[in-house]
Amino acid sequence: MRALKSLTLTDVFPMRRGTLKAPTIAYETWGRLNANKDNALLIFTGLSPSAHAASSLDDPSTGWWEDMLGPGKPLDSERYFIICVNSLGSCFGSTGPASVNPETHQHYRLGFPVLTVEDIANGAIPVLDHLGIEVLDTVIGASMGGMTALSFALSHGTRCRRLLSISSASRSLPYSIALRSLQREMIRNDADWDNGNYPLEESGPASGMRLARKLGMISYRSAEEWADRFGRERATDFGESDTAFGIDFEVESYLENHANRFIGTFDANCYLYLSRAMDLFDAADHGGSLRNSFEDLALEAAMVIGVRTDTLFPLHQQQELADALAAVVPEVRMVSLDSIQGHDSFLVDMDRFRPVIADFF
Amino acid sequence: MRALKSLTLTDVFPMRRGTLKAPTIAYETWGRLNANKDNALLIFTGLSPSAHAASSLDDPSTGWWEDMLGPGKPLDSERYFIICVNSLGSCFGSTGPASVNPETHQHYRLGFPVLTVEDIANGAIPVLDHLGIEVLDTVIGASMGGMTALSFALSHGTRCRRLLSISSASRSLPYSIALRSLQREMIRNDADWDNGNYPLEESGPASGMRLARKLGMISYRSAEEWADRFGRERATDFGESDTAFGIDFEVESYLENHANRFIGTFDANCYLYLSRAMDLFDAADHGGSLRNSFEDLALEAAMVIGVRTDTLFPLHQQQELADALAAVVPEVRMVSLDSIQGHDSFLVDMDRFRPVIADFF
Repeated sequence: MRALKSLTLTDVFPMRRGTLKAPTIAYETWGRLNANKDNALLIFTGLSPSAHAASSLDDPSTGWWEDMLGPGKPLDSERYFIICVNSLGSCFGSTGPASVNPETHQHYRLGFPVLTVEDIANGAIPVLDHLGIEVLDTVIGASMGGMTALSFALSHGTRCRRLLSISSASRSLPYSIALRSLQREMIRNDADWDNGNYPLEESGPASGMRLARKLGMISYRSAEEWADRFGRERATDFGESDTAFGIDFEVESYLENHANRFIGTFDANCYLYLSRAMDLFDAADHGGSLRNSFEDLALEAAMVIGVRTDTLFPLHQQQELADALAAVVPEVRMVSLDSIQGHDSFLVDMDRFRPVIADFF
Repeated sequence: MRALKSLTLTDVFPMRRGTLKAPTIAYETWGRLNANKDNALLIFTGLSPSAHAASSLDDPSTGWWEDMLGPGKPLDSERYFIICVNSLGSCFGSTGPASVNPETHQHYRLGFPVLTVEDIANGAIPVLDHLGIEVLDTVIGASMGGMTALSFALSHGTRCRRLLSISSASRSLPYSIALRSLQREMIRNDADWDNGNYPLEESGPASGMRLARKLGMISYRSAEEWADRFGRERATDFGESDTAFGIDFEVESYLENHANRFIGTFDANCYLYLSRAMDLFDAADHGGSLRNSFEDLALEAAMVIGVRTDTLFPLHQQQELADALAAVVPEVRMVSLDSIQGHDSFLVDMDRFRPVIADFF
């Protein structure tokens, strides 16, 4: 899951609360930058994806947004030069807690500075400079990526013309903070976490990561989808568990399978840092209120997409973001979709998402 | 938290999947049974409360439904003889996994038979017989207690005239099953659980119980309440946690305090059994569908109360229950309340709940 390209800075990278010496930012690109250098799109990801948003000649494996990005697709690589960065603090090529600190030659682990969404946004700037892109056509992000895209637009107003925010929010509210805080506690409570000092070549705090992933899935999907999909269907693949408190129902088996696939693919310390970065994010930090913070936004247009069944980034947060943007951005469109897959809909309900995003471009 | 009264059976008590030898059912009562013996109300509790629903001369400590039950209150102990039983399988006087098996002289622990909501309902019958009550005026329950009350009405149609179901459901759907399953996994993953063999006099799997309680609180309250109540307020009582991944926000401190109060008050194995009993419950088991299962219901009236912000037992499940009841019960009233405290509203939003329940009686 390493990205195809990466840029290692020669300077010290200033973070909001600390510095990193010569970090690496991994990224992938699709399509070609035109002569005017004005057809670039930048994608920031959610918490767990890599920069491999879609397949390419260099890496034909399926990407996490395969149906959205490519020739003739809504993010059309025949028209646009599309960049996706692996978030600073993540573990798919960009520098994060699982990376080696070049000063100490030890892995950062919990010595990594407190990570903020603003740092992740800033991490894309050297990549754009390196690629010779002064102004992006659009900065795009879903979930945590939407927070990052908003932060980018706020801090680098001259570097992007448009914003596309999907199932995201201008700040974290206590319900989502509580869920993420509990996920982090599950990981930290696992004795194998060992205060962040688990052997990096092994699976780390697998039990804590399993619980955290299951709670993630519960918060990413919706009760409505699961009632339709599983009802009270009994699990067959894990056997009868009359006394063992194992798996009775199909929904439990689904969670178990999802968690099993996640274990070992994502570094636990990186997860902790990225998760907390979402909690700490509040776009109103810049100016005391969203309106004040957005005052200097230089965007020409923005689209905010949300989903009725999303409980983690609920529709009223999309509306709040769209309303605050509308006060300063000439063209703002708020789209509310009726998908039943909750927060994850942008990854799976392509029939609803593709036409809306295609329309924006 | 032991109940004031208890009845120990002399016979073997048949359960749906097993038997218990001479179990005890703990209960409390308020008011007096009238000469006609037709003024009795029976309350089944949610997962964690004891039979101490309200204070009395014999136990002046505050009960879990203190504002609802007592002289002149909606459950009026001057008019009604009110009984509350501690659920079979619980740990406040009734026989459960933390009790001693009289046959082996060992604690049951995981040797306790699979517990079902039907068993809990049946556990009240000997108490009613003992008290000389043939027919209840009303069987009442909230949350798991509502499932138990419904099960009682289904299995013992001649023993109750009316049903009051609060924030409950006729079956568990996959979203709530997933949450409870994950809570059980948190407890079972705690090394101190030791496959159910933790020392009963100590606090048991405190770390797992802490996580489970926090997830419980997240599912019992609502995002709306917390946004109003906590917003993005920073915690002050747990100190700064820049690198330790501790507590940043007030909502995290709230969860921590709640969990701390819960640890050591509830037996972990009992929690596992009661939690799974809720997952297993499906009132349609009796007849293949709710309509068929309810065909022989002899109730004269029923009221179903639900709350708009309850995500664990959502309004559409209250409506489903009310609709199925309405097909066979002469007088059915469905009440939807606008409380913002989610599933827990019946314990805290007394201004909305009291008049509705007073009106029923």
